[in-house]
Amino acid sequence: MNPAGFRPAHFGWRFEAGVATVTLNRPERKNPLTFDSYAELRDAFRALVYAKEVKAVVVAGAGGNFSSGGDVHEIIGPLTEREMPGLLEFTRMTGDLVKAMRACPQPIVAALQGVCVGAGAILAMASDIRIAAPDTKTAFLFTRVGLAGCDMGACAILPRIIGQGRASELLFTGRVMTAEEGERWGFHNRLADDPLAEARALARTLADGPTFAHGITKAQLGTEWAVSLETAIEMEAQAQAICMATNDFRRAFEAFAAKRTPEFEGD
Amino acid sequence: MNPAGFRPAHFGWRFEAGVATVTLNRPERKNPLTFDSYAELRDAFRALVYAKEVKAVVVAGAGGNFSSGGDVHEIIGPLTEREMPGLLEFTRMTGDLVKAMRACPQPIVAALQGVCVGAGAILAMASDIRIAAPDTKTAFLFTRVGLAGCDMGACAILPRIIGQGRASELLFTGRVMTAEEGERWGFHNRLADDPLAEARALARTLADGPTFAHGITKAQLGTEWAVSLETAIEMEAQAQAICMATNDFRRAFEAFAAKRTPEFEGD
Amino acid sequence: MNPAGFRPAHFGWRFEAGVATVTLNRPERKNPLTFDSYAELRDAFRALVYAKEVKAVVVAGAGGNFSSGGDVHEIIGPLTEREMPGLLEFTRMTGDLVKAMRACPQPIVAALQGVCVGAGAILAMASDIRIAAPDTKTAFLFTRVGLAGCDMGACAILPRIIGQGRASELLFTGRVMTAEEGERWGFHNRLADDPLAEARALARTLADGPTFAHGITKAQLGTEWAVSLETAIEMEAQAQAICMATNDFRRAFEAFAAKRTPEFEGD
Repeated sequence: MNPAGFRPAHFGWRFEAGVATVTLNRPERKNPLTFDSYAELRDAFRALVYAKEVKAVVVAGAGGNFSSGGDVHEIIGPLTEREMPGLLEFTRMTGDLVKAMRACPQPIVAALQGVCVGAGAILAMASDIRIAAPDTKTAFLFTRVGLAGCDMGACAILPRIIGQGRASELLFTGRVMTAEEGERWGFHNRLADDPLAEARALARTLADGPTFAHGITKAQLGTEWAVSLETAIEMEAQAQAICMATNDFRRAFEAFAAKRTPEFEGD
Repeated sequence: MNPAGFRPAHFGWRFEAGVATVTLNRPERKNPLTFDSYAELRDAFRALVYAKEVKAVVVAGAGGNFSSGGDVHEIIGPLTEREMPGLLEFTRMTGDLVKAMRACPQPIVAALQGVCVGAGAILAMASDIRIAAPDTKTAFLFTRVGLAGCDMGACAILPRIIGQGRASELLFTGRVMTAEEGERWGFHNRLADDPLAEARALARTLADGPTFAHGITKAQLGTEWAVSLETAIEMEAQAQAICMATNDFRRAFEAFAAKRTPEFEGD
Repeated sequence: MNPAGFRPAHFGWRFEAGVATVTLNRPERKNPLTFDSYAELRDAFRALVYAKEVKAVVVAGAGGNFSSGGDVHEIIGPLTEREMPGLLEFTRMTGDLVKAMRACPQPIVAALQGVCVGAGAILAMASDIRIAAPDTKTAFLFTRVGLAGCDMGACAILPRIIGQGRASELLFTGRVMTAEEGERWGFHNRLADDPLAEARALARTLADGPTFAHGITKAQLGTEWAVSLETAIEMEAQAQAICMATNDFRRAFEAFAAKRTPEFEGD
């Protein structure tokens, strides 16, 4: 992947000074996901593991909405025709997108507004940090199409963000979580009238930080879920010792000693 | 179990159009639990696995309170006389009640009011969704009777609902969580002046939904706690593929295509 | 360890009627941690396992701040000179302090004020209950010195206290969590103008409670993180049966029967 020259067919891509912006961009249909866009997004996030120039990622939607999720006609209709192997192929592909978002080392900042539902809500959930416009309506509405709330990791991830009780209500009922609720419950990190501008500014700050260490932070946030406290602490002892062997750690000390602001280079 | 004809001896039971209401009903003592009611409740929730007519469950208390928990004279007194095997028999029985509540496929909506303490607080915690009157006083007061906070799964479940810090305080001190705190912390999904009416209305909505899928949602919310993110996502890929093979999924698509509201049948 | 005669060299110690107060006490530098104080704190918390006279612990800072964390000149500078084995030796030592705080049976109440950053924020996080002054500024600022957020268990513990989304932001950015945010998010159990006085009063209450059972509560809060729900419930059935065999349980029943307040003795 050459991030400066990457031209995806099914979503927007902009790369500038270490920050990549992924834009779901079929605004006339509120940015639905399709078989093609799922697969291409999965491949793009997988490629980010090796795209060292990309230091942080923003995900956003075009035209006032984030995403309406899996398209009813382009996805749900065809799925009703599939046999089990074809269904599992689909659910594994969408799950692989979430795995890829969690496995890339770059922090992902979601800029949310308007409609943020179904697979759109999942992409928001799978991001690291969420900044939302006050009009954002987030709904895990799988139940509305006859499905379970357990889509793409939602029964595992959502309770860890907003707690088991609130997650249960959203997943069983499919109801909208307002932006205000989302902020109060810890889903949205903050509300902003221009979430894209704020997400980019935050991504810029992260890209200017110790990006190798950020990748370790992200890895540990993902891998320490299902281990004992003792194991987690030993994992962190090893992970942080690795970071202490980086140049960025030395740069920070030298800057503090010289009363300068440190300049990190991600190595 | 014939839900229409089920007549428990130690709690109230009402079954209507897919929704069962379990009522703790010794209001003159604020609905305490006894050896008999624990065992009968455990058996009832176990039977719900096979009671396909029951689509959702409401648990409530009679006479303005939810439950005062294990009765001091009928439970605590006799326990102080028991040897270890008898003590473990009791704690396993009460734990089995929580296991049964989590293992039945029906979502459980708790309607809470007044006193909601001890094992009563546990029953609330073991439900999926909680609606509480503003006067609800919830306390995990095991410490007040010389016991640990780890009763019936509380040290595992409560932190996942309200966070480890708040759970620690409640479990170490046994203090009351007010209704307002409970809502703010994510224990209560919402406050309502008539929690039973709202719990029934919500249970009715759930019973009218894709109930097979709801059972899968509940299973996944319970089983994905202690697995890695990758495992959870593969579990959901399989679980959701199963739901995509149901008639309810097809019904939803056909309804959307025809601009109708889908009518789910739970198969 | 003789808690009445314990005289640590690198932090303050006061023992009174069952409550030990640990005070980080280099106020002229905002109570930084050093190699020596880390090691001595680790040893002290390890010794508490056997110091039965100590029933509860308060951790505090002298002079209006809690702690500025690892000292830049005494810790960060020397670390930049170390080879990998020496780095891992350090990160394991600091991790061992958190393990020791979680492994001692006494509940730990943190009294927070002013600066509470870096390893200071970790000590607050590793406590059981946190009471903070309104001026408390908490920051997991490892990223500011070129390191990852995964320090001493933070990527495992912090999400369980305040949720994965909020923890991600704090750990990736290193930004300050205000006292008000900390209370709203469940990090601080409450705010108080005199957090040390309130922490001591709470520790006193805990010390007067069933302290054997409190130790079991703490053990279960730590060990049930990474097990299935079924396993957790069986663990609690066994743990609570142990508590039902204590004299404190009997004392509570006898006091209730006699309409007295129970007096617990911790056995």
